[in-house]
Amino acid sequence: MYRYLDNIDASRVRGMTDGELAVLAAETRDFIINSLAGTGGHLAANLGVAELTCALLAEFDPPRDKIIWDVGHQCYVYKLLTGRRGGFETLRGRGGLSGFPKPDESDYDAFGTGHSSTAVSAALGFAKARDIIGGDERVVAVVGDGAMTGGLAYEGLNNAGRSDTRLIVILNDNQMSISDNVGAISRHINGLRTSPGYIGAKKGVKGFLGRVPVIGGALRRFVKRVKDGARYLLVRGVIFEELGFTYVGPVDGHNISELRAVLRNVRKMDGPVLVHVRTKKGKGFAPAENNPEYYHSVGRFDPETGECERKDAPRFTEAFAGTLARLAERDARVAAITAAMPCGVGLKEFGRRFPERYFDCGIAEGHAVTFAAGLAKGGMKPVFAVYSSFLQRAYDQIVHDVCAQKLPVVFAIDHAGIVGPDGETHQGAFDLSYLSHIPNMTVLAPRHPAELSAMLEFALSLGSPCAVRYPSRADEPGGDVPPVALGEPEVIASGERFAIVSVGAMAEACRAARERLLDEGTRAALISARFVKPINAAFYQKYEVILAVEDNVSSGGFGEGLAAALADMGWRGRVVRAALPDRFVPHGKRSGLLAEYGLSADGVCDLARETFAP
Amino acid sequence: MYRYLDNIDASRVRGMTDGELAVLAAETRDFIINSLAGTGGHLAANLGVAELTCALLAEFDPPRDKIIWDVGHQCYVYKLLTGRRGGFETLRGRGGLSGFPKPDESDYDAFGTGHSSTAVSAALGFAKARDIIGGDERVVAVVGDGAMTGGLAYEGLNNAGRSDTRLIVILNDNQMSISDNVGAISRHINGLRTSPGYIGAKKGVKGFLGRVPVIGGALRRFVKRVKDGARYLLVRGVIFEELGFTYVGPVDGHNISELRAVLRNVRKMDGPVLVHVRTKKGKGFAPAENNPEYYHSVGRFDPETGECERKDAPRFTEAFAGTLARLAERDARVAAITAAMPCGVGLKEFGRRFPERYFDCGIAEGHAVTFAAGLAKGGMKPVFAVYSSFLQRAYDQIVHDVCAQKLPVVFAIDHAGIVGPDGETHQGAFDLSYLSHIPNMTVLAPRHPAELSAMLEFALSLGSPCAVRYPSRADEPGGDVPPVALGEPEVIASGERFAIVSVGAMAEACRAARERLLDEGTRAALISARFVKPINAAFYQKYEVILAVEDNVSSGGFGEGLAAALADMGWRGRVVRAALPDRFVPHGKRSGLLAEYGLSADGVCDLARETFAP
Repeated sequence: MYRYLDNIDASRVRGMTDGELAVLAAETRDFIINSLAGTGGHLAANLGVAELTCALLAEFDPPRDKIIWDVGHQCYVYKLLTGRRGGFETLRGRGGLSGFPKPDESDYDAFGTGHSSTAVSAALGFAKARDIIGGDERVVAVVGDGAMTGGLAYEGLNNAGRSDTRLIVILNDNQMSISDNVGAISRHINGLRTSPGYIGAKKGVKGFLGRVPVIGGALRRFVKRVKDGARYLLVRGVIFEELGFTYVGPVDGHNISELRAVLRNVRKMDGPVLVHVRTKKGKGFAPAENNPEYYHSVGRFDPETGECERKDAPRFTEAFAGTLARLAERDARVAAITAAMPCGVGLKEFGRRFPERYFDCGIAEGHAVTFAAGLAKGGMKPVFAVYSSFLQRAYDQIVHDVCAQKLPVVFAIDHAGIVGPDGETHQGAFDLSYLSHIPNMTVLAPRHPAELSAMLEFALSLGSPCAVRYPSRADEPGGDVPPVALGEPEVIASGERFAIVSVGAMAEACRAARERLLDEGTRAALISARFVKPINAAFYQKYEVILAVEDNVSSGGFGEGLAAALADMGWRGRVVRAALPDRFVPHGKRSGLLAEYGLSADGVCDLARETFAP
Repeated sequence: MYRYLDNIDASRVRGMTDGELAVLAAETRDFIINSLAGTGGHLAANLGVAELTCALLAEFDPPRDKIIWDVGHQCYVYKLLTGRRGGFETLRGRGGLSGFPKPDESDYDAFGTGHSSTAVSAALGFAKARDIIGGDERVVAVVGDGAMTGGLAYEGLNNAGRSDTRLIVILNDNQMSISDNVGAISRHINGLRTSPGYIGAKKGVKGFLGRVPVIGGALRRFVKRVKDGARYLLVRGVIFEELGFTYVGPVDGHNISELRAVLRNVRKMDGPVLVHVRTKKGKGFAPAENNPEYYHSVGRFDPETGECERKDAPRFTEAFAGTLARLAERDARVAAITAAMPCGVGLKEFGRRFPERYFDCGIAEGHAVTFAAGLAKGGMKPVFAVYSSFLQRAYDQIVHDVCAQKLPVVFAIDHAGIVGPDGETHQGAFDLSYLSHIPNMTVLAPRHPAELSAMLEFALSLGSPCAVRYPSRADEPGGDVPPVALGEPEVIASGERFAIVSVGAMAEACRAARERLLDEGTRAALISARFVKPINAAFYQKYEVILAVEDNVSSGGFGEGLAAALADMGWRGRVVRAALPDRFVPHGKRSGLLAEYGLSADGVCDLARETFAP
């Protein structure tokens, strides 16, 4: 029983006093801790924005006003207060509430997000549309300091800053991405964070200096510079100011009254405004305050102690981490790069052991890839470890900087295929398609962690661009790993006429399917493709009918490539493809989604039976 | 007969006096004007960097020192002075000298470029590789002010700025991208440009303030801010300084002595340094000085008057421009976006007629797409007009911001397929592959300009993401345009059993091939696919053998998609694909390259004959 939360909606929030809002914020925090204890989800970031969200809803009027959450995993409080409390027990489950803003779910979600650094650009689009169509709604982008390390945020600020449009950017500064922030901009923001709050005084300065008679020429320039200098002494948001924003802050992001006063003020301001709000990730839940990185995204946990249910160890990631460290020990030219996710991709330990050869670039995948190209051209052997859906952001850098120059950069692509509860924006559904068509690229997929180790070693010895992609979960325990040879698949079980060819971790479902077929009297070969590119078509042509199974969209994926390579040889057999469909894969359990798309043992078995039917 | 240029190489440049270098710079300028008069090429940017290139070669020691030209089309003077004078008559022709840095061509070209804003990231890679491996070579990135509008440049600066590595960024400020620069950062740089030169004084200031006893706490912060404020009053490169660079400049980029003195100085400096050099695009050639945008890239011209040989009008671009203006007149929600290429994509006139609905985002394709998504969600009908190879830079924004939300953004993709003389980095060889596998996307290709107009109208009425891609040249004059219907191809000429299916402008070569086959007694249908996605497979299944012809790589392209769609229907015919090969397409004439890859009338005819042989 919550005093305010039980009957909340956005219109009620607008009428509440500061004191009531403070209670409401505490209630949302309590609710989220207890609800996520059962469902898991993005905990720490949401605890950090309880007051900010209450204040935004008190001073702005969505869905008329547009509130755009950058990245978006911090939108739980917002969802809770905008009519979606009932959905929290279904959070991130198939058909349940999404963990990210989704316009399909509610009009309060102005714009879908999931990847970082998009909100300023999108907000500028909304603001310009309003200016053209005619309207007076406010547009607010809430952007974390981590997102400011992304070039897209800079492009957005640079374009918004020179516009004269009304636009509010809230810099939600919790001094973190998922991991610690990096880069000069973070240092800059941190400098601001520790400076005295500054909200109104500048106007006075501008007013005073505006009254200095301006004669022109040298004097005007001098006055201008004194004015800018004075501004710089008073406000340290100089990068934002130079980019054309009025900088306001820093504001205590856990003080409702201060937040509301500032938001009420900036709501009336013209032109682009940046409000710097200091928050604490994990606020109000001691375990998360003390270790916000660990509590960034959690499974089920004890709401009293914070103790988390043992998660299945991400065994591919572990194998990657161990193997890379071993290879780095042997070869001083091996270097590792992450884009702000050292834990997620398994590079934390590498960073401790080889600090000179470890680079956390911030949320800047484009830079990470071009930087890797430079390292490679300079004689190093760089490995960029990254999630599949985030590598999408560096497609051109892979084409233009790595592959066009055939540089030996290794892409260790985690979270390939279905990732599950994070949904549409995080599924690794496209990597085979966006990588395989690039000349000079080699693409591998291991079926279990032990094979990943062998493939990583192969990739580092190849001397040209090479991607190894693997899912977040390992379905197979591992086993013997035959030597990896360019283009060669592995025959797991022999057969004639028919073959089931699996990509990567699809092998386990295919193995189960093949066994059932065998029981039914059909003896199909079971082959792990290993290489999605290049494909040794000559190997496959001995079969008459091939079922290709991959956790990637069909278009541009392995099955199409195999069919095309075989057709080019004059092969007249048939390739049937089991793959992800031509639509965005929603959130839900990984296993359930795989089954839904026919990529479970049952699904593969059914399709194989049909495919190989006489 | 040139006094110095006739016997030049990099080592000789190093020994020359300032006066001799000034003559050399004038000679290179003269040579380039006369040479490009015959070959065409990127004229204006190269005239602007004659002195800068001479000074760089005098003070640095490539190939030991690494000089990385951002974008790279300004590398002609550098090529001329590093042993490649002989190649200039072959510039940008098949097998000839590339118009961009190419490590395969010369060790002096440290890193391949072509797209904008990559140099700082690559340079940081070289610098870190040097630090790890052990070396003392210098790394210099030469970056235009236009490239600073790209987020990748910011990501590079942000990461380089917090490193303590030796790295020199030369900001080559000519106040232009190809067209005028935009954005707050350009305003910032322009502010610097007009401020008095500042090279040495700051050190004194730092020294003085460094001696103020620091007691800590408030006083330390106060001193720090006075220091920063003083720095800001003295040097206006505050964004670069805040990003961790030592800012030096502005320097007159046409004054050899000043350039050398500064470069000699910064060569010795530790940490990241940014040297702001003011240059004039087109310098020394009056027509180019007066109209640098026109002379950015030229065909053959008169070296006396600057009069250019009449170029074939880019008829697709013209049709796009005319149609979009017409549609914008009719519908006030139509908006247009360019990433710094209003002329190239045909939006100059639109910008004049509809300034409120026209947006030049700078070289920031990622922002352009996410901004378009925001505009669309806000009720507008945005059209992003962009070259195929540059749209590669916004792949994730297309996936994540546009297609995942199914927003009605239209991509008008110019320079698709083979572009010719700009080579590897500029070919539009991948767009069908990187777009077709994205859910919710529709992809069209018109065969002539009149069809582009109809398709653009269709795209704007579709209400979901839609790409229309067309090459730089129109081979077909145009003609009747049957109504455009989702997924439906156009039957240009009927036939049975056999069909030649062309994508977009490949239709003309296919038409010629089909006629020759007809003379030989084979009557194939001639079909223009129109839609690369979706494909109406039911339509195609009446044929037994299909030759699919596209100017895109085979992997993930139309032919593979068609074969897969037909296979899914149980069709047992054969699809043969004529497409670009799985390698980067070099520079050369478009027609010659198409012929080389079997995409001319002859090539299609030969393959059709073989494919349809009994």
